[in-house]
Formats: sequence, structure tokens, C-alpha cells
Amino acid sequence: MPTTATFYHAGCPVCVEAERAIAAALDPARFRVEIVHLGQAKARVAEARSLGVKSVPALVLDGVPLHINFGARLDDLG
Amino acid sequence: MPTTATFYHAGCPVCVEAERAIAAALDPARFRVEIVHLGQAKARVAEARSLGVKSVPALVLDGVPLHINFGARLDDLG
Repeated sequence: MPTTATFYHAGCPVCVEAERAIAAALDPARFRVEIVHLGQAKARVAEARSLGVKSVPALVLDGVPLHINFGARLDDLG
Repeated sequence: MPTTATFYHAGCPVCVEAERAIAAALDPARFRVEIVHLGQAKARVAEARSLGVKSVPALVLDGVPLHINFGARLDDLG
């Protein structure tokens, strides 16, 4: 049963590049990737923060927040 | 035929956590992950730099350098 890996982004060029590279590279047998655009889903900024996300793009995998390159600070998103 | 994804690290706690989380999560049907400890393989620091790596841990995937969280600056490794 795949677990959910959540990729948070804000539509920035760094975010798009990271999404193409990493979110698509995960093993589909183990991970179902949910893509969350925090610029459009403001209500989920608090959720990302509670998971330890400090900047986007970020991937939360098995509860571990992985900040991938740097696009924007979470605090600038809401 | 899997392509090689290279995970550069320096043995730091942030590196180990990232390695466990991301290097092991890639689709094995598409990627063969090479783990490079730059503290032990100093000769490969220049290679990492030429690929655009600025800090470790970092994963180079399809030529794209992805800096994952932050452990150490490449310039501090040699």
C-alpha cells in the first residue's frame, strides 16, 4: 500500500524544476505523491508548517521535511 | 535501463537523514543511486561542483542538482 508523500510548492520556477525532478522520481509502488500549491491552497500553509516545512519547494516523506533547493520562505506565503 | 542518480553527502546527521529518506525512495526501475561521501572521496568534490552542487546533502538527478536541507557548504569540504 503506497504511503502519501506531499510536495509543497508555490508555483515558482525553482518549485517547478524540483517537482519535475523529484516528485516524479519516487517509487510509485511505495509512494503516492500529492502536489500542494500553497499559493492556491492558503489553508494548508499551517499544515505544512506543522510538518516542519520552512521553505518551498519541500517534500514531506515519511514525516521528514526535505527542503529542496530554495524558492520561497513559508512565512512569506501566509 | 536505470540512469544513475548521485547522492553527495559528508556523513553529517542531516546528510544521513536525507539519505535514508530520499535516496531510498527513488524508483529502482528508473534510478540506480550512487552514494558519494565527499569527506572520504575528496577527489570528487570538483565533480560535484561542476554539476552545480553547492552544499550537501545533494542529489543530482537527470543533471539537476537538488540541495536537500542543509548540512555543509561544498566549499568547506575541499
